[in-house]
Amino acid sequence: MTCPVIDLAQQLIKRPSLSPDDAGCQAIMIARLKALGFTIEPMNFGDTQNFWAWRGEGKTLAFAGHTDVVPVGDESRWINPPFEPAIRDGMLFGRGAADMKGSLAAMVVAAERFVAANPHHRGRLAFLITSDEEANATYGTVKVVEALMARQERLDYCLVGEPSSTERVGDVVKNGRRGSMTANLHIHGVQGHVAYPHLADNPVHRALPALAELAATEWDQGNDFFPPTSMQIANVQAGTGSNNVIPGEFFVQFNFRFSTELTDELIKQRVQALLEKHQLRYTIEWKISGQPFLTARGELVDAVVKAVRHYSEISPTLETTGGTSDGRFIAQMGAQVVELGPVNATIHKINECVSAADLQLLSRMYQRIMDQLIA
Amino acid sequence: MTCPVIDLAQQLIKRPSLSPDDAGCQAIMIARLKALGFTIEPMNFGDTQNFWAWRGEGKTLAFAGHTDVVPVGDESRWINPPFEPAIRDGMLFGRGAADMKGSLAAMVVAAERFVAANPHHRGRLAFLITSDEEANATYGTVKVVEALMARQERLDYCLVGEPSSTERVGDVVKNGRRGSMTANLHIHGVQGHVAYPHLADNPVHRALPALAELAATEWDQGNDFFPPTSMQIANVQAGTGSNNVIPGEFFVQFNFRFSTELTDELIKQRVQALLEKHQLRYTIEWKISGQPFLTARGELVDAVVKAVRHYSEISPTLETTGGTSDGRFIAQMGAQVVELGPVNATIHKINECVSAADLQLLSRMYQRIMDQLIA
Ligand SMILES: [Zn+2]
Ligand SMILES: [Zn+2]
Repeated sequence: MTCPVIDLAQQLIKRPSLSPDDAGCQAIMIARLKALGFTIEPMNFGDTQNFWAWRGEGKTLAFAGHTDVVPVGDESRWINPPFEPAIRDGMLFGRGAADMKGSLAAMVVAAERFVAANPHHRGRLAFLITSDEEANATYGTVKVVEALMARQERLDYCLVGEPSSTERVGDVVKNGRRGSMTANLHIHGVQGHVAYPHLADNPVHRALPALAELAATEWDQGNDFFPPTSMQIANVQAGTGSNNVIPGEFFVQFNFRFSTELTDELIKQRVQALLEKHQLRYTIEWKISGQPFLTARGELVDAVVKAVRHYSEISPTLETTGGTSDGRFIAQMGAQVVELGPVNATIHKINECVSAADLQLLSRMYQRIMDQLIA
Repeated sequence: MTCPVIDLAQQLIKRPSLSPDDAGCQAIMIARLKALGFTIEPMNFGDTQNFWAWRGEGKTLAFAGHTDVVPVGDESRWINPPFEPAIRDGMLFGRGAADMKGSLAAMVVAAERFVAANPHHRGRLAFLITSDEEANATYGTVKVVEALMARQERLDYCLVGEPSSTERVGDVVKNGRRGSMTANLHIHGVQGHVAYPHLADNPVHRALPALAELAATEWDQGNDFFPPTSMQIANVQAGTGSNNVIPGEFFVQFNFRFSTELTDELIKQRVQALLEKHQLRYTIEWKISGQPFLTARGELVDAVVKAVRHYSEISPTLETTGGTSDGRFIAQMGAQVVELGPVNATIHKINECVSAADLQLLSRMYQRIMDQLIA
């Protein structure tokens, strides 16, 4: 007995689609969606293959995901080769099984079942698929979103297939993500010889009280949906390597993961005020990798919660923790965005795997969400 | 009209004795001293050529110096080639002219004149010459001192020819040097992802308050002879280079230049107490490059001050500032140690030079010191 979700997941896993190489995965998905009457719009940018597909009109529910996978690591440590999927003890093994070819298969099969049952659905069903989420993410979802926004495409609900769950499918869904921003700080001093400190100005000594204060700062207390904003110093470097030279410059790189209680502008202002207070000579550059987003209670969250409860008898926890995802780009379209996918315990690891039963359930949950929002 | 001091200085400068290569300088000095009846004892260690020479018996006045020079830098920027000495406007140019082939010539000529005038001097006159003071200093004076101490050689007074003066020969003499000690500190944490700080332990954050306190510490107030002890952070490093990884380890290297108010043991205790107080997990290694030494007022300082006054009508300032010198090793023999040499304004630079008249005066000063202590 075969299951269409597991079948399709295996077909996708067989393609070694290391970012940003799609390796033929999207062609498989496109063939299936075309057969359902979807309009397919390839949206390739740079080295990255993406597509946007839709069926019907009106309120739009889009499924978003990526066909690319992370490198396999030490291949000899895989029980079966990473691109030769195998099922053992109910688990489907292979690179991308959990992140996120299993979800892609669940989406496509859910769409097939939904269209079969509702050939004239009242809303619009759409897919936004990229081949570069895991690596640079420069020419992927962010570019597709730009193009869609430029022509005023409407996107009401977006379900991202990222593996959100921790122990059972649906136990956790993400209804937002923290923002991420990095600062490259150069503190300037005057180089010199350690025997003549009065002729030099040690930027490390000068910066230490400011950095200690920065590290001890409480940025906010979070809120009902977000943990408190956190700042981590990721890299520091000063010195010529010689033990008798006072460095002339001190480089410090730190990263913020911030809640919706703050904005990037507020953080910049507070950091710069702190540096000014300590009278440092410095230059600072900021890089924003994602604004925070939040989809509070609403139609999409309700539909997701109900669908999970229906098939698993558990109530999902809504979380905003963890890294960033392509949801950050889609949220800019004004859409409600929720991430629902399988258990993430083995993602990016050797012997990545996912419960086959969970994938089947996930496909049913996706279908039930379609039912509630656009049937 | 030729001057024997300038002649000999030029002969030495002509030999390109880049550390630890002596390039024949010591052979010239040895021939001159042998002719005076000195006993010569070569003391070569590793790649380094050294000699110990003496004449007479009793209280010993040793002259110490090095034949090696630092690299010439960009040779095209020298007015005359660095190893072709030339006199212009009363200045003798060439690599080593001031540091310290001029001093070596002044010492040898002073010995010749002194022995001619005092063939039966009552004390012992000695020379301790190395070819590696400027580079590693591993097989130079430190090894000769070890060998001399092992056989209970007596050394009462030592005059080091390092260029101590700032504007006119003898305006500054060094009657001591600060100690130098370096700490390599590794602060241990737990590496992790910036999105999950509760699973990691950032060693930079943890260490900042301790380092800020370290940098703000007043170690002592110095004393009549020494400036306050100073600590400088020379190198810091943490991070993988990625902006989303919390580093697992933080490396900090700092150097102390310390007065005779402290010992290396006291400094270690205070630093370690501070690190313990901040509850850091760390490992620390210490490297002592030199203990502080001081030759307070006494026969040698008196003789030096009188000799300088006699020939220059200025009273030398006694200082202990600046880097380290081979005096640190000789002081361990229990000898009084003073550094007296020409103006150091151009040492280690392009177009190094020294006043020819100063070298002639310096030779007379050296001779007068011999007169006072061992005639
Ligand atoms: Zn993913
Ligand atoms: Zn020197």
